[in-house]
Amino acid sequence: MTAPQLFALTPGEPAGIGPDLCLLLAQQAQPKPLIAIASRELLAQRAGQLGVAVELIAVGPDAWPDTPSAAGSLYVWDTPLAAPVQPGQLDPANAPYVLETLTRAGRGCLDRQFAAMITAPVHKAVINQAGIPFSGHTEFLAELTHTEQVVMMLATRGLRVALVTTHLPLKDVAAAVTAERLTRVTRILDQDLRSKFGIARPRILVCGLNPHAGEGGHLGREEIEVIEPTLERLRGEGLDLVGPLPADTLFTPKHLERCDAVLAMYHDQGLPVLKYKGFGAAVNITLGLPIIRTSVDHGTALDLAGSGRIDSGSLQVALEHAYQMAASRA
Amino acid sequence: MTAPQLFALTPGEPAGIGPDLCLLLAQQAQPKPLIAIASRELLAQRAGQLGVAVELIAVGPDAWPDTPSAAGSLYVWDTPLAAPVQPGQLDPANAPYVLETLTRAGRGCLDRQFAAMITAPVHKAVINQAGIPFSGHTEFLAELTHTEQVVMMLATRGLRVALVTTHLPLKDVAAAVTAERLTRVTRILDQDLRSKFGIARPRILVCGLNPHAGEGGHLGREEIEVIEPTLERLRGEGLDLVGPLPADTLFTPKHLERCDAVLAMYHDQGLPVLKYKGFGAAVNITLGLPIIRTSVDHGTALDLAGSGRIDSGSLQVALEHAYQMAASRA
Repeated sequence: MTAPQLFALTPGEPAGIGPDLCLLLAQQAQPKPLIAIASRELLAQRAGQLGVAVELIAVGPDAWPDTPSAAGSLYVWDTPLAAPVQPGQLDPANAPYVLETLTRAGRGCLDRQFAAMITAPVHKAVINQAGIPFSGHTEFLAELTHTEQVVMMLATRGLRVALVTTHLPLKDVAAAVTAERLTRVTRILDQDLRSKFGIARPRILVCGLNPHAGEGGHLGREEIEVIEPTLERLRGEGLDLVGPLPADTLFTPKHLERCDAVLAMYHDQGLPVLKYKGFGAAVNITLGLPIIRTSVDHGTALDLAGSGRIDSGSLQVALEHAYQMAASRA
Repeated sequence: MTAPQLFALTPGEPAGIGPDLCLLLAQQAQPKPLIAIASRELLAQRAGQLGVAVELIAVGPDAWPDTPSAAGSLYVWDTPLAAPVQPGQLDPANAPYVLETLTRAGRGCLDRQFAAMITAPVHKAVINQAGIPFSGHTEFLAELTHTEQVVMMLATRGLRVALVTTHLPLKDVAAAVTAERLTRVTRILDQDLRSKFGIARPRILVCGLNPHAGEGGHLGREEIEVIEPTLERLRGEGLDLVGPLPADTLFTPKHLERCDAVLAMYHDQGLPVLKYKGFGAAVNITLGLPIIRTSVDHGTALDLAGSGRIDSGSLQVALEHAYQMAASRA
């Protein structure tokens, strides 16, 4: 008999709502063995603050579980804090702790100990305050796994949107949409939809860069000079690409019904619709990595940590996606 | 007794679906006297092609109607074509006809003969082919009414989105978002929401220019250098402005529930969500004009003219908005 797939969950910033989300989740039985990589002490303390009864079951490299956890319990691979945590109070002393949880999860995925990792939010600034250069989960995992190019995709039920450029000032976007970058990103998107989502021949809708996709060159020439020839070359490699299409007509049922993902050229072209459609239930997926990683799409919400007033919708969708992706890949 | 308010409807390009939309509309009784400014012959011919029975009632400056038209009839201010029309076949010879219908409607609004004008789509290229410089309804009406700055707003039931910049290549957007332009556009939006929509103190949500609204300067400095100081000055004039907010979190129920309009910095930041939410039932409203003008949000659909396979949803919403705006203004 094959051992069951294990899934790693990192609660991220200990002063944020990540620990709370794990505890909320533990109220229900899980369909797969899910391992929180976190301080057991932190989770026990937060459970007390929330008034939540939960059995924290110690697991780890010497003893992995065979079955999913029951309602009211949570598997924990204990990872010690450097300093005690007050909900809402950031402390740079715990930055190495946060990174250690990510490293354990990422290495475990690389070793195929874990089938996927699911991440709750970290707080970039406090890690930088600790003197550790850190620009986000995605970059950290890219480095850990020696991956040159990753692609950010957000998904909600019924819609996936990947981005050619991500966190760039708007004035720099047009120049960053090169044939080379577009080629790399599109190939990764196509490849990961095949290998991690089990889609035999993904149909991808591609946005233009300019309004009305340039309107035949009247509103910008990047479609004619960069995007169209690049898509044409990639079609020659067997990719099923539609576009470039105007972003304001692409996101309508007529087009979306027959597509597996939308490729937007930049952040605010693609994500407002995705988050409008999926608010509270959207998930961030890093494509291009040799591992499966999904994440909630919200921040640390420091002001809500320990309050009990949180919504686990995004984490639920991140888990669903991780389970499905692991099954498609297996 | 005051004469009833009259409304002008221009079917636009005669080879497109504009005439079809007018005939579809005529199947129902109208709540207000609505005057199609068009060739009576064209409408009669298209009705024959569609197999639609409709009574075309001649009206005009010598004889305006006192009551709304009944189901199965349409008021027509006859405006002769220059050449016969085949559905789907553009003919530059009729470009002056198209502009004459717009001129009659626009002048009639200026003279207060009409309370508002509602426009079906024109075909820019064929007008330009006729040797007439023409860049769209909006610019034409701005010139006709001697208006320096207009603002494009799209609306659907439950959401209004106005734009600081409209049909610009993306690479030119950041430089075009100046304090001066932002000030003019925001004032017009505020003023028109008051005077044409009857909103006492409009609450406007303003998007940032950059992803995450610049994230404190890390992803672009326009929010800090241009947008924030401009909004602060305008707040000093009594405007109720929220932002700049990240576009991908602004378009969520929490923010939208308490706002009268969203101000987006550019086309593809604001319109994909609007059209996703309102597809088939969105309307384009030109703010800043001394007249009320609403428009469908779709094109001429030359391939569907005469086919009967059209949807009048957008025109219905354009009419609803024109009626409501005229009532708010009266």
